[in-house]
Parts: sequence; C-alpha cells; structure tokens
Amino acid sequence: MAGKDQVASFNTSEISPPRIINLDNGDPTMFEAYWRKMDEKCSLVISGIQFLSYFSDTKDVCWYLEPKLEDEIKRLHRVVGNVSVEDYYVVVGTGSTQLLQAALYALCPSDGSNPVNVVSAVPYYSCYPELTGFLRSGLYEWKGDARIYDEGGPYIEFVTSPNNPDGSIREAIVKNGQGKLVHDLAYYWPQYTPITSCVGHEIMLFTLSKCTGHAGTRIGWALVKDKDVAKKMTEFNTISTIGVSKESQIRAAKILGLVSDSCLNPGLDNFFKHGKALMAERWEKLRKVVGQSGLFSLPQFPKGHCLFTGEFSTKAHPAFAWMKCNKEDIVDCEKFLRGFQILSRTGRRFGCNAKYVRISLVGKEEEFELFLEKLLAIQEEIFCTVANGWPWFTKEVQLVP
Amino acid sequence: MAGKDQVASFNTSEISPPRIINLDNGDPTMFEAYWRKMDEKCSLVISGIQFLSYFSDTKDVCWYLEPKLEDEIKRLHRVVGNVSVEDYYVVVGTGSTQLLQAALYALCPSDGSNPVNVVSAVPYYSCYPELTGFLRSGLYEWKGDARIYDEGGPYIEFVTSPNNPDGSIREAIVKNGQGKLVHDLAYYWPQYTPITSCVGHEIMLFTLSKCTGHAGTRIGWALVKDKDVAKKMTEFNTISTIGVSKESQIRAAKILGLVSDSCLNPGLDNFFKHGKALMAERWEKLRKVVGQSGLFSLPQFPKGHCLFTGEFSTKAHPAFAWMKCNKEDIVDCEKFLRGFQILSRTGRRFGCNAKYVRISLVGKEEEFELFLEKLLAIQEEIFCTVANGWPWFTKEVQLVP
Repeated sequence: MAGKDQVASFNTSEISPPRIINLDNGDPTMFEAYWRKMDEKCSLVISGIQFLSYFSDTKDVCWYLEPKLEDEIKRLHRVVGNVSVEDYYVVVGTGSTQLLQAALYALCPSDGSNPVNVVSAVPYYSCYPELTGFLRSGLYEWKGDARIYDEGGPYIEFVTSPNNPDGSIREAIVKNGQGKLVHDLAYYWPQYTPITSCVGHEIMLFTLSKCTGHAGTRIGWALVKDKDVAKKMTEFNTISTIGVSKESQIRAAKILGLVSDSCLNPGLDNFFKHGKALMAERWEKLRKVVGQSGLFSLPQFPKGHCLFTGEFSTKAHPAFAWMKCNKEDIVDCEKFLRGFQILSRTGRRFGCNAKYVRISLVGKEEEFELFLEKLLAIQEEIFCTVANGWPWFTKEVQLVP
Repeated sequence: MAGKDQVASFNTSEISPPRIINLDNGDPTMFEAYWRKMDEKCSLVISGIQFLSYFSDTKDVCWYLEPKLEDEIKRLHRVVGNVSVEDYYVVVGTGSTQLLQAALYALCPSDGSNPVNVVSAVPYYSCYPELTGFLRSGLYEWKGDARIYDEGGPYIEFVTSPNNPDGSIREAIVKNGQGKLVHDLAYYWPQYTPITSCVGHEIMLFTLSKCTGHAGTRIGWALVKDKDVAKKMTEFNTISTIGVSKESQIRAAKILGLVSDSCLNPGLDNFFKHGKALMAERWEKLRKVVGQSGLFSLPQFPKGHCLFTGEFSTKAHPAFAWMKCNKEDIVDCEKFLRGFQILSRTGRRFGCNAKYVRISLVGKEEEFELFLEKLLAIQEEIFCTVANGWPWFTKEVQLVP
C-alpha cells in the first residue's frame, strides 16, 4: 500500500523550485548528532506539580534563578577555564539577548538628562543597533562604530570576543570618557576558539544556544562582579518578563551538567572536542572551496595555546564565515548569493559595506554541504563568463590555500 | 539516631521570629493539591536532542510558536467559551508581561514625533506604570487614570477584566481621541468569575500563571485579530528575547490539554470546578472574618449566569481581595498590616490612596489560614483598645455579613 501519497510526494519533489539554503541566522543545529547520541543521558522528566511559583531562591540576588542552574554554570566554567566565576553573581536571562538589554538598563542612570551612548566596533553584532534602538529609550542610544566614537562623557561599549561576525579576538576600543564595558563572550568556548586565558571582566554574557546548541531553550547568563549591577539587571528581567522559564533553567542545568561530565569522564565523548572537530572540518572544506578562485575571501586567524585542550598551536574555527566578495562589479554580495538561493546576512547590518556577508557555519550538515556545492558552481560559472578577465579580484584579496 | 539535627531544628523553631505572611505578590500556589493529584497524568519527558533550533513553524506569523501549544490554547478557549478564537492569530510571550509591552510596541508608530499616551482606569494593575515607563520609551508614555484622561489624539487603554486588583468587570473608559484597546483577560476564567459571554476584542491577553497556576513556566498568549498587529507583536518578542522557551511551550500545551480533558471527561476532576470551589471557600471565610468588625471592607460582586458551569446565579471570587481599612486614623493600611507581619500591596501602587491594600488569595492554604487568624486577632486587639470609640468606621463602609 505505498499508494497515492508517496507518488504525490515524488511528483512534488520533481517540480519543486531549487532549494533555498538559509545561512542568514545562526541556528545552531550542527550538534544534532552529538545530542542524539546523548539523548537518554540527559532526558528530563517534568511533573505536573512543578513550577507553580514565580520564586526559586528569594535569598539570591537573582530571585528567580534555579540554584541547580547556577551550580552547573559555575561548574562548567571551572571545567573549561574560560572565565573566572569566583565572587561573581549569576543573572539568568531569556537568552543573552535579554541580558544585553538588562545590562544597558543597569548601567544607565534612570534619571539622566541625556541617553547614554552605546557603541561597538565595526563589524559589530547585527542585533546591537536593533535591541538598543527599537524602543527609542531615553536611557541609552545607539551610536555605532566604537572606532570612530570620540564624544566625552558616559558611554557603554559592547566588546564581543570572539567577535560576531568575524571571529576576531577583541578588547575595548574607546579610551576616552567614562566608559562601561559589556563583554559578550557567547563564542568563547573551545569548539570555536582556543581558550588562551581565563578572563574576568565586570559583566560577561553567555548563551546556551552557542555553547551547546540549544537555541530553542532560550537561556543566557551573565557573570556580574558588582552586586548592585546584578540587582539592577535582575530588576530589568523582573519588570520585562517576571523572571525566566524554570523548565528551561532546569533543562539547561541538565545539559550543562552533561557537558561538564563529558569533559571529565574519559568514557564519554567530550562535547567540545567533538564540536571543535566538526567546526575544523567545516572550515577546512570551506577554505578549500573558496581557494578555488579569488572570487571570495575569508579572514585568517592567529594560532594560539588552548588551555582547555592543551594544544599549543591551534586556530579559531568561528561559528560564522565573514566572507568578502572580491569581484569589483558585485557590490552587494548578499543579493548576489540570493540569486543562487543562498541566504546570508549583508555586511551592512554589521556596520560594513555590502561586499561582505555573514554565513552561518553552525547549521545542519546537509545544508552546509549543499552550500559548498553551490559555492563551487558559482565560482565555475563566474570563471567561465569572465573568460579573459581572470583574475579580476581587488588588491585586498588574500588567497587562501 | 534522631540526634543533633532534629534538636537543633526544634530549638531554631522555638526562637524564630513571628512568621511573615507574604500576600503582596499573587504567587498562585493554591492549586498545588490539584496538580499533585494530576502529577503523573501531565508529566513530560524532554530528551537531549530537543529544541536545538530557534524555529517552530516558519510559516506561522508567530514563527517560534509551537503548533501544539496553539492547538491547546484554542481548544481550551473553545471548551470554556470565554473568548472567540476563530480567525485570531496567537502570539505567545514570556508571560503576559512581555505581551503587554509587545502590544504597546505594535500599536505605536515607530516614527511618531510624540509618545502615545497609555492609560488604565484606577485602580489599575500595579505593573502597568512600571512596564510602560521603565525604559523611558519615546514610543509610549504612561498617563495614569483613564477616568480623568481628556487629551485628544492617539492613546492606548489597558482594559483589565476581571480587574486586578478589585475583581470588577470592566469596559473601555476613554471615549474621545483615536484610542486602541488592549484587553488583559488574565482572570477571565471560571474559577474567578462567571463566564457571562464569549468576548472577541482586538487584542486579548492571557497567562498560564493565572489560568492553571504555573507561574514559573512564564507563558502568556495573545489572541490578535489583525495580522499586522500580530506580526509586530511577534517582532517585539523577536528583538527582545528571540522567541519564547520551547520547553515552557510544550509544558503549557500539556497542562492546558489536561485542563481541557478535565472539563470534558467526567472521570477527571474538573479543574475549574475544583478551583472555583477553593476560591469560593476562601472568600466565604474571609468575608466572615472581615464581617466580625467594621475595621475592613471588601468589594461586593453582582450575580451572573455562568455559561461554562451553567449556574444561573453565581458570584465572582477574584484572585485578590481589594481591602479597605475604615479606621480613620489608619491612613496607611499596608504599613498597618506590616506591623502584624502581613505583607500586602499598597493601594498607592494601583493609583489609589493608602487606605486600600491588595491581598493575594491564591497562595498556599496554610498561609491563607494564618492570615485569617491574624486578621481576627487584629480586629479583637483594635476593638479592645478603642473601647467606647466603636464603631469608628467611615461612612463608605459596607458591612459584609
């Protein structure tokens, strides 16, 4: 009884339009195979009686934070050694997106006569302008590129390290005025970059989606040095959402716990080593394809000593490829790729020009492979049509082997 | 081996200060017994592989909404008959708190030269001024009591029905200008009030915490008539938190599903009948205690025909008691009660005077009983001290039998 349905679906597939590959958002589905393998080890049962109350621990600065999640966050940071957690307050948020806003709220005086300027160095994470500006707050205002910012007075700088979109390791840029820093360390994990030091900034933000891949869980956390800042960030999350889903919190605790276990127990498949191998493989394949012509270029990363893996000479393998189109007459790379059914995020959203795009490298395997195939085909097509005009790339191009 | 620990704990208990009863926030733990009984029937297993993606249904206006949750929300409304759901878009939020802000964002032009005025009739829900004003948005501004609002031009009115804090059934107040309405129907469920009609407003907000008691789950939903408004509310939730916890969404779906089942299946304990019986019992006890003297007064509610239970003459049993202190020299009722270790929310936070307090009636049974005991003791103490001055209540007082 294979019947009608199967036939119908074959027919549909035969006439369906070319498949669109969405590499615009960084939907982190690449760790699917790992989590499928670990499925039962971190399954969680939630019963009907759980989570009737808003409260988790009324004595904690972050009153809605589940103690088990705080424990597992601190434990994982100790295991990885990426940041110090001693004497830090943990504030949990609905993703780090909420915590970025909570940090702005906490760092700006509520009665200031002018909004505090908010900056980040180009290329900056595309959501910063949006989340700073969308409510036209009188507390803070988006001022764009930190590199050209030269006003005095109070300001806030988002320091993203490794940076989204380009994977570079960053430090604060602005030196004048009375600045406050928010370190967005979403990608400071061993699968993306060597852990070269154990850092300890005033406010450090993390998110489950980039650490383990569980984006749908919407859990982020802030490590905050100053108690009053932690209190005010908690206040933001109280007013805006009266806390954070407890189901997600205990789920995050379970997942982070398993990640820590996987690092400590040789019988388990180390999550970060698994993730790093995957990322390294993708970058190798991508560089090979891009190296076929000079049409596109990719950033290079210095080698570093990773304190977590112990490797002395290892490179970054960021979650995104910050790709530049070198063909002079292609001014809008995002539009160009869209013509080949590849969706990417234009450089303009990161404060750059449209010759750049951000390509997600953390999606599903089949999607990534299809992307490589298309990229090869594009290069061949362009190469054929330009014929004698080759090589037509601009002088900034770095040919990657 | 009972030993040291037990002795220590007895000693601690003997010297502990008088117990504080917190009836300030409406932490809905009163349905604990029901959910304990139903514990296994709605337990949920979440496995490691689940919720790696941000997305639920990219074709839905609310792209992060789990289809199962949408189904169960609509099913429950159909079962209860409190609001119409046909041709409505569902937008889910991290509690209805997030959706109130999403509605403001959706109803205000992003390029308006002046913020849109936001009003609600006194006594209004204490969080409205806070969530409208905390970011000093240029899009909207809190203007207070809808009853005295007389400006022209665009405005938004929050219509809370049944009202928090006083349980009254409400309609929009402001008649001039170009108003948009947001109906906050958090308490429009049979345990709190007779369901007298199936309503169908432009934007209607609900929250799991008041419907089933699962406040820690942080799930709210909006039923929205206009597609563009639903899209813009979704945009707010996208920018502010990139969607809503999927763990909470599937949990909410499970719980709402069981509530619907309990209404349809005579073999199950009907959740709303159970809840209504509890609320009715608490109100009866409270009225009896308050009726012992004229020190306090409580609102009265008209009888109505409940379409859900079929009862022709049933009264409201709101989640909060909006209590007035009638003793002339007690000007601050919240402070007065605090002297007896009873925490309540002052009338000032609801735009009223301090002779009023809001008392949560949805907390734990033992807390409620302790509250009644203390209330009796307070009345006796006051009665003894005033001696010949009795009755000293003001003329507005309604003595409740």
